[in-house]
Amino acid sequence: MTTKIKIVFIVIGFIVLSCKDETTKNNNDQVSNQGHPNLILTKAGVEKIKSQLGSIPIFDKTLQTTKEDIDAEIALGIDVPIPKDFSGGYTHARHKRNFLILQKAGALFQILEEEKYAVYVRDMLMAYAKLYPTLPVHPQTRSYARGKIFWQCLNDSNWLVYTAQAYDCIYEWLSEEERHVLENELFIPFANFISEENPQFFNRVHNHSTWGNVAVGMIALVMDHDELLEKALNGLKTDNLKAGMKDNDGGFIKVEGQKVGFLANVDEPFSPDGYYTEGPYYQRYAMYPFLIFAEALHHVKPELKIFEYKEGVLLKSVNALINLSDADGEFFPLNDGQKGMSYYSRELVTAVDIAYHFGGNNPELLSIAKKQDRVLLDDAGLAVALGIKEGKDKPFEKKSINLSDGPNGDQGGVGVLRSEDLELVFKYAGQGLSHGHYDKLSFSLYEDGEEVIQDYGLVRFVNIEQKGGGNYLKENKTWAKQTIAHNTVIQNETSHFEGKYEVGSKHHSELHFYDDINSQVQIVSAKETNAYPGTQMLRTFAIIHDKDFEKPFILDILQVNSDNENQYDLPYYYLGQIMKANFQYTVLPELKPLGNSNGYQHLWKEATGKPSSHNSKFSWLNKGNFYTITTISDAQDDLIMARTGAKDPDFNLRREPSLIIRRHAQNTVFASVIESHGNYNPVSEFAVNTYSSISNLKVIYNDENYTAIQIEDVSKKVKVLLLANKDASKLSEHILKIEDKEYKWTGPYNYKLKSE
Amino acid sequence: MTTKIKIVFIVIGFIVLSCKDETTKNNNDQVSNQGHPNLILTKAGVEKIKSQLGSIPIFDKTLQTTKEDIDAEIALGIDVPIPKDFSGGYTHARHKRNFLILQKAGALFQILEEEKYAVYVRDMLMAYAKLYPTLPVHPQTRSYARGKIFWQCLNDSNWLVYTAQAYDCIYEWLSEEERHVLENELFIPFANFISEENPQFFNRVHNHSTWGNVAVGMIALVMDHDELLEKALNGLKTDNLKAGMKDNDGGFIKVEGQKVGFLANVDEPFSPDGYYTEGPYYQRYAMYPFLIFAEALHHVKPELKIFEYKEGVLLKSVNALINLSDADGEFFPLNDGQKGMSYYSRELVTAVDIAYHFGGNNPELLSIAKKQDRVLLDDAGLAVALGIKEGKDKPFEKKSINLSDGPNGDQGGVGVLRSEDLELVFKYAGQGLSHGHYDKLSFSLYEDGEEVIQDYGLVRFVNIEQKGGGNYLKENKTWAKQTIAHNTVIQNETSHFEGKYEVGSKHHSELHFYDDINSQVQIVSAKETNAYPGTQMLRTFAIIHDKDFEKPFILDILQVNSDNENQYDLPYYYLGQIMKANFQYTVLPELKPLGNSNGYQHLWKEATGKPSSHNSKFSWLNKGNFYTITTISDAQDDLIMARTGAKDPDFNLRREPSLIIRRHAQNTVFASVIESHGNYNPVSEFAVNTYSSISNLKVIYNDENYTAIQIEDVSKKVKVLLLANKDASKLSEHILKIEDKEYKWTGPYNYKLKSE
Repeated sequence: MTTKIKIVFIVIGFIVLSCKDETTKNNNDQVSNQGHPNLILTKAGVEKIKSQLGSIPIFDKTLQTTKEDIDAEIALGIDVPIPKDFSGGYTHARHKRNFLILQKAGALFQILEEEKYAVYVRDMLMAYAKLYPTLPVHPQTRSYARGKIFWQCLNDSNWLVYTAQAYDCIYEWLSEEERHVLENELFIPFANFISEENPQFFNRVHNHSTWGNVAVGMIALVMDHDELLEKALNGLKTDNLKAGMKDNDGGFIKVEGQKVGFLANVDEPFSPDGYYTEGPYYQRYAMYPFLIFAEALHHVKPELKIFEYKEGVLLKSVNALINLSDADGEFFPLNDGQKGMSYYSRELVTAVDIAYHFGGNNPELLSIAKKQDRVLLDDAGLAVALGIKEGKDKPFEKKSINLSDGPNGDQGGVGVLRSEDLELVFKYAGQGLSHGHYDKLSFSLYEDGEEVIQDYGLVRFVNIEQKGGGNYLKENKTWAKQTIAHNTVIQNETSHFEGKYEVGSKHHSELHFYDDINSQVQIVSAKETNAYPGTQMLRTFAIIHDKDFEKPFILDILQVNSDNENQYDLPYYYLGQIMKANFQYTVLPELKPLGNSNGYQHLWKEATGKPSSHNSKFSWLNKGNFYTITTISDAQDDLIMARTGAKDPDFNLRREPSLIIRRHAQNTVFASVIESHGNYNPVSEFAVNTYSSISNLKVIYNDENYTAIQIEDVSKKVKVLLLANKDASKLSEHILKIEDKEYKWTGPYNYKLKSE
Repeated sequence: MTTKIKIVFIVIGFIVLSCKDETTKNNNDQVSNQGHPNLILTKAGVEKIKSQLGSIPIFDKTLQTTKEDIDAEIALGIDVPIPKDFSGGYTHARHKRNFLILQKAGALFQILEEEKYAVYVRDMLMAYAKLYPTLPVHPQTRSYARGKIFWQCLNDSNWLVYTAQAYDCIYEWLSEEERHVLENELFIPFANFISEENPQFFNRVHNHSTWGNVAVGMIALVMDHDELLEKALNGLKTDNLKAGMKDNDGGFIKVEGQKVGFLANVDEPFSPDGYYTEGPYYQRYAMYPFLIFAEALHHVKPELKIFEYKEGVLLKSVNALINLSDADGEFFPLNDGQKGMSYYSRELVTAVDIAYHFGGNNPELLSIAKKQDRVLLDDAGLAVALGIKEGKDKPFEKKSINLSDGPNGDQGGVGVLRSEDLELVFKYAGQGLSHGHYDKLSFSLYEDGEEVIQDYGLVRFVNIEQKGGGNYLKENKTWAKQTIAHNTVIQNETSHFEGKYEVGSKHHSELHFYDDINSQVQIVSAKETNAYPGTQMLRTFAIIHDKDFEKPFILDILQVNSDNENQYDLPYYYLGQIMKANFQYTVLPELKPLGNSNGYQHLWKEATGKPSSHNSKFSWLNKGNFYTITTISDAQDDLIMARTGAKDPDFNLRREPSLIIRRHAQNTVFASVIESHGNYNPVSEFAVNTYSSISNLKVIYNDENYTAIQIEDVSKKVKVLLLANKDASKLSEHILKIEDKEYKWTGPYNYKLKSE
């Protein structure tokens, strides 16, 4: 019996393996370049989809809702208004909706074979072909690269990326004459406008340019137009731009010697780990053109092997991006990021489906696709729908991760430490182009998808017209980009690099070490020596899962050494309501701004205190959890309670609190423990474990080579964290004598019972 | 065929009806008073439960989790510490946990017949019997009626209400000697202490006294002790209390001529509609003793017909309470109410199960029980579990409702207008005893369970020791109880009744009219003439479902007439971020409190503006929805943006915003429309319908008899709301000439197209 069963298993195993190989091969099959559609949908893919319809739940559902949407739009009729508004205004919203609809209507025509969709696409494209040649540049003048349909070339490019797909879907259905009109009145002039006529937009390394490159590339592939494709891939040969030019956001337009075009936009901003230097919010935005164009190139120009480009960085980047989201799938708002954006966005549906289909069918991606509950209406979406139908999905387990920044992965990075429900995000990256914030060695903390210690994010209400036309607001520069808006050290009330983009862009922090092998002590350490010339900062975060504590706790050790005595401010932007402080503080009877410039003008000083002992404790309640910061204080420290919202004439800022530790020193260590503990339930009204478990925190050693922190808990157990500040080698052996006790360990850190 | 089927249906129908009758009869059967348990669990009930175990999912599940809880506690051992702490402290939390566990352990003994539970209950009760005689009054001195186990008699009474049930469950299992010890060392002295020795606690009409009365009553029923039962039902005959005495909260202890005891506590605070004058938060708290004692009386003293008392008010009150919750089941925080408390609380599990079982098996209650996902481990819980198992549940549809206040229903009330996802709560009630706030004619607004315009609630962190021992904080009096903390008019920066409890307690607002018959125009109107002597206020809220608007909108018309010129402040405590105002305002470079007293000292004045036109518009974004207040302005009005948090030395207040309309006038009308419109999705980044649909709002008529408001929308349609200010009769016919147009209507209001 046993033998027979084994044989059966082997046979089944063989069949399964064979099938898998077959599938993989199919996915990577080079689709014939004969006939349309061939860009995203392919002739073969459409046939496969049609043969499966009705038996692939998530695909069928997406198709049904798409059909309902598009049918409703068709019933309303075509509206191609004369461009007039900023984002948030009617003409902007209408044209945006138009391109999204066109793309979908094209897909419906292919899948459902109902001519009404082709007619709709044609008629709307013809309306654009009639309008476009009459258009001057957009009447809104704010952009460094004004579009024609929209106020900036960026949105015009969005339009073309989507409509190229629609055009591909009805290409063969159109008459040659119709194609001639569309290409010569609309698509070619359109592509020329966003490229040749706007080199300051097209010839850059920036998410804007990526959209521009891809727009031109997509329509080039549909039209089989080699010249445009070459521009898309490698940029304009000449652009007459001067090095040092800047855009609206203060970003460089031209950097001497920098390559341009789509491939350069893959090379430059992506690190080998797939981290995109602008941060996850913009990575999400750029993901769509990167991946949709990669898919198109894969189909039409398979010889380019685009998915293998730079060791498969485009597919890796999807994994990196998902890892840069919290437990609810919301992206960490590093740099300019609007909170709430998540992997439920349409761009991530594209990214996940394409990464699954072309990246080896990672079953963890299926679980994300399942949450998204919709798929692309194309070959990739079909593959995902089939995977889900067949129950192949596995949970996407987000673990601790360290992502390098920079084209070669040597320009700092972002570390995410995860333990139970806690997620700590540590930023020691490069500047992040024009969307970067000046916040070297800053961090944020999450618990179960809720912000505990926040990064403010951007100051903008994307697409809400009432708020400055939906564009960046001036407080983005005066507040969000300033260092004081972040959880990192500020010297003498001046932002890192004095907030100068030219300077910040030249530098990045350096990883000291990262270690997540030991799930009990996960740790990341990085240094910054350029933010303030003459000052070195070394910050280490450890998330420690210690059975003597209810939950993992965070150790935050920031060593600052300088040539001079300075004022150091270290803010913690906690969210929630203060429960208790163990130090004396006085609330102010009238509120004044904390300072005059560099973001300080936006903080109200609510209260100020002085340490009552060598450990200052500060507790708060947020969303049912208690938190405590225990920090080692100097007697002369100021403990400032502040809140955003000063000098905010249009109420663009949220009113949110901060605890700022202010110290005057030359060389010092800020050492703190952040604990999440207990909970409060307003229904049962039970308050559980409402106090910190730390009874004493001490720096027992600190010099340029070593720092040692001693942690005593309420049960009198004493632990020590030992750090080597210079030697990051995992193999180095260290011996350190502290208060007559000799500590020996190997590697850059050690956490142990003091009595061990 | 047809005939046959009909007959079958009739037969089945007959069987169903018969069964139902049978069930109803069983429920109301008078259970024999022979033997224990007979209080909550009954001998017959236990038999029925045992016969169904394993086949009643929600009951089985509750039993399982209860068993796990109690087994874990038994494993930990008994801890009966010497009383020391306030609520939030260890000894408080431990004793509280003890009584909750005792009650459950008793039920487990009966249902599972495992002796270990009886042993546990006995041993813990014996520990208390040993401790109790040694106890002085509790060392914490804050209460007007200090307990022995807890810092106040209130919590001692909680203890006895629960332990009486545990005692009943093991009564027959105990030896007579053991019973003798428990009764003479513990229960009788305990009952005497909270009654005879604390008449200022026991002989009142107050939720505290209800607990006291019920505690004594429950243990009296178990012990069959008539003298104690008489005290419980009708109070102490003599108490030597002086009229006018007050408790810690400023509430009256003795009111001359007032009846006391449990029955008086049903008579007084409940209106005939089942509204409890302290408000839903305290009604929830009091619900448990009211209903558990009613159930016990029903079982042991069926001749009292307690569920029929005062026309069945106890059962009606459950319905009233559920209707005073938002879409998520959270109670509106009228008066002193802690936000977040909901019908998921243990008290409401009791209330819903008892109301279902003894109140005619309303299937809508089953849907609430289903959400609660647990039941009482008794006859009532069994009935609910069976009802759910049999699929009898129907959605609890919360409609608009008007609940009278006062023992006879003639002391004002609370109206809730509901339309689609919007819920407007209008308070025109009596003072609400010592937990009442001074906010006549105030309101709050909810959308889909989220606060839009909030009532602040109480200033207290119940059971969180760090915050004043979990007790009321001083800002409850200086802020939450003051009129400026609410969405109603404040005259000359003085609270209603000058914030004097003696005065406020004598008065109540008066309903003018309420009408929810027409789902298109639901309306409530009430007047207040005592809050400020010499000033009459009439406020009308209408929620109008008009097809020309995306969602229902709210009309808020507040007429104020006075003998003198005054300053009137009308705040709107909106939640969310300001999007846009159509008036000029200036943010202040430094913040000062808005005033010096009566709550004004707790508001920071952030900005001040003046109307730019006769309509001031103010928009904000909250949880993805846009809102706009359009208000008719006088040119001289001040429009003040304020925020809570000034003079708050312990950060006890939340920092939340308000728009305050300030007007100097003698007679005036504040007329505003509040719209919810559109939405913003941070994932799609689409902003939909971000602007108000009101283009012009005008008072076209106003005198003592009539007020007329004209509403023009952006599509130029003009509607008129006509109000009769004196004549509330539904039959009265009105004729009013406004600007040469004659309006005729019947009843106190009319809403129509102007051109009609």
